[in-house]
Amino acid sequence: MQLIQHPGLRAVAGFRAAGVHCGLKKDRPDLALIVSDRPAVGAVVTTQNAYAAAPVHVSRQHAADGDVRAIVVNAGIANACTGRQGLRDALEMARRTAGELGAEPEQVLVASTGIIGEPLPMEPIRDGIRSAAATLDEAAGDEAALAILTTDSGPKSTFATFEHDGRTYRLAGIAKGAGMVHPNLATMLSFLVTDAPVGPDDLRGCLRAATDRTFNQISIDGDESTNDMVAVLANGNGPRLSGEGLAAFQEALEQACRELAQQIAADGEGASRLLEVSVRGAKDDEAARRIARAVAGSNLVKAAIHGADANWGRILAAAGAADRDLGDDVTLVVGGRHQSVPVLVNGEAQDNRRTAAAALSSSVARIDLDVGDGDGQGEAWGCDLSPDYVRFNAEKTT
Amino acid sequence: MQLIQHPGLRAVAGFRAAGVHCGLKKDRPDLALIVSDRPAVGAVVTTQNAYAAAPVHVSRQHAADGDVRAIVVNAGIANACTGRQGLRDALEMARRTAGELGAEPEQVLVASTGIIGEPLPMEPIRDGIRSAAATLDEAAGDEAALAILTTDSGPKSTFATFEHDGRTYRLAGIAKGAGMVHPNLATMLSFLVTDAPVGPDDLRGCLRAATDRTFNQISIDGDESTNDMVAVLANGNGPRLSGEGLAAFQEALEQACRELAQQIAADGEGASRLLEVSVRGAKDDEAARRIARAVAGSNLVKAAIHGADANWGRILAAAGAADRDLGDDVTLVVGGRHQSVPVLVNGEAQDNRRTAAAALSSSVARIDLDVGDGDGQGEAWGCDLSPDYVRFNAEKTT
Repeated sequence: MQLIQHPGLRAVAGFRAAGVHCGLKKDRPDLALIVSDRPAVGAVVTTQNAYAAAPVHVSRQHAADGDVRAIVVNAGIANACTGRQGLRDALEMARRTAGELGAEPEQVLVASTGIIGEPLPMEPIRDGIRSAAATLDEAAGDEAALAILTTDSGPKSTFATFEHDGRTYRLAGIAKGAGMVHPNLATMLSFLVTDAPVGPDDLRGCLRAATDRTFNQISIDGDESTNDMVAVLANGNGPRLSGEGLAAFQEALEQACRELAQQIAADGEGASRLLEVSVRGAKDDEAARRIARAVAGSNLVKAAIHGADANWGRILAAAGAADRDLGDDVTLVVGGRHQSVPVLVNGEAQDNRRTAAAALSSSVARIDLDVGDGDGQGEAWGCDLSPDYVRFNAEKTT
Repeated sequence: MQLIQHPGLRAVAGFRAAGVHCGLKKDRPDLALIVSDRPAVGAVVTTQNAYAAAPVHVSRQHAADGDVRAIVVNAGIANACTGRQGLRDALEMARRTAGELGAEPEQVLVASTGIIGEPLPMEPIRDGIRSAAATLDEAAGDEAALAILTTDSGPKSTFATFEHDGRTYRLAGIAKGAGMVHPNLATMLSFLVTDAPVGPDDLRGCLRAATDRTFNQISIDGDESTNDMVAVLANGNGPRLSGEGLAAFQEALEQACRELAQQIAADGEGASRLLEVSVRGAKDDEAARRIARAVAGSNLVKAAIHGADANWGRILAAAGAADRDLGDDVTLVVGGRHQSVPVLVNGEAQDNRRTAAAALSSSVARIDLDVGDGDGQGEAWGCDLSPDYVRFNAEKTT
């Protein structure tokens, strides 16, 4: 597993992070702690699954007033479908983390990822929280990115700066994804921190908008998990950003989320190619995003991308199923990083499947679709569907 | 390829059917004709894809008044995304078929299945229609079931009788499915004939209801095709069925559609197991069907079924994503034909994953879910997701 290139969460002033091995996973770090050393504002976007896991319920509640100091995360067990005991365990994770940091339990967000329906073994969790807190000072910052992973092939992170009014702010984030990644945040965790001063309502609004355009537009296999969560902490002092400053933060946050989303999509279980879908000409942005998601999420499209097969009828079929009012004036361009081939121009099929197939044989496959229906635009990201995906998911727990 | 066991479409009085090789597919029958020798009533349910193929548009129009005598079907080329020429070609198929039979072009339904975006080679089609019409008398009835297939591993058919008022009526049907099969009729063709006397509005209503509960509840891979069509012809003389007689017909039609739907699901591309999902306790039947479809269509559930993995959290995650208002009082039973194992009882996880895995190792995998929310019931059918599915779909056209 390669270590990440980015400076990590602790490159953002006032934040520390740690990742330790507590025993839920074999020989791998499995418990992460992210802490702001000063008061911070927090916001979360969580799964909409009816069977949302216990930590999701706890985090929604603890983020409600925006007063958040820390995030504690475990990998290996999802603490989902675990009833009242699961809720008690998630609350205990918050309480013990708060105890180590001298914070209030309500200032701690909790996230879990892993197998559903198994009780959380609390003894290792308690030890893990203690030792993570003890290593906060010496940690390099990469450990947290490693400790939240499950089936990922490597850690995902991003780092950015943005300027406003002569000041430079920093923004860093980590994520995990791989299996079950889909619109509406399926088994996807992402944690971002910034030293920008942002108010709780603004932070919530910015995270919601960024998530809708990025994390909710990735699709690995169409399922939506019980545990997905995106959280952001902002610990900047001074007057809170507004107007242009807030817009600059929003842009930086969305770009950070987009980079993490692309890393997640490219690392889908069994994936060998990142698939980028761009839709223009839809009746509005929401319709464009829906069509893009449908194309990026179509098994038949994904299998075709795996084989670099220019069977573009599948792309049209997926788009036409996602928006039943589309007209015939469609233009479709497929290709990779270096070559693009128009296979359908204003509804006229072009006779170039072999050229298109060659263009698709790239580490990044691109689909550009103009549905000729309006001004709406949207993007989505996915990956190819490979025999390895199935092999992997057929042999998971038992 | 084994021949079907059922007596075939011609076992229904007044119907003949033929299947011939016209050259669109290599060495396999690829053009089918189904004909009523006397006036008949017809109804269709078609795909809702925005890019519906030319034959779909033609058939919708020709079935509008219920006066239908014949169905002509080709396999190999979908005649979709083919613009004005495609429409002209589909109309010519109807016109030539009518010419052979002494019927009106408007009395002929047209269906196509195969690759999207390629023009229909009309010379072989014309020859095929001619020779199919010429063999109508000697045909055994099975040829049509073979000639509509594409990637299916074998023909699909059903036959049933029902009684009313001292008379016995017959009902027979054929279908093709396999790849791209999904709710809302994705690349699925089915043609049914009956010698019962049914009025056009009743026939349409019965077909719509039966389709919603059967064909629209199968899910092979989540995509919806441009060419799906279910059609039924009824050529009975005498007073049209109503009241109990119509109810008996409705029941027989729904059962016939269910049998064809199950055959299609079991023959999904690369499938080795039929997956039956039954949902109870939803707020209404529609919600139950939506949940059942989501479970049967979840890649993660399907991959788990392939490996007989009792990772039942995936089933809950799929259900909870399909209906976000579900409560925690869930009971989940998994198993096969011979053994059922309750893995979650009123929200309490049972510690029996290995027993459940053993039960799932059956040619038919069953999932029974009670979501404790009301009286709604629904079923759905799917298949496991295998590495073969991907291999097959990554190497299709180019």
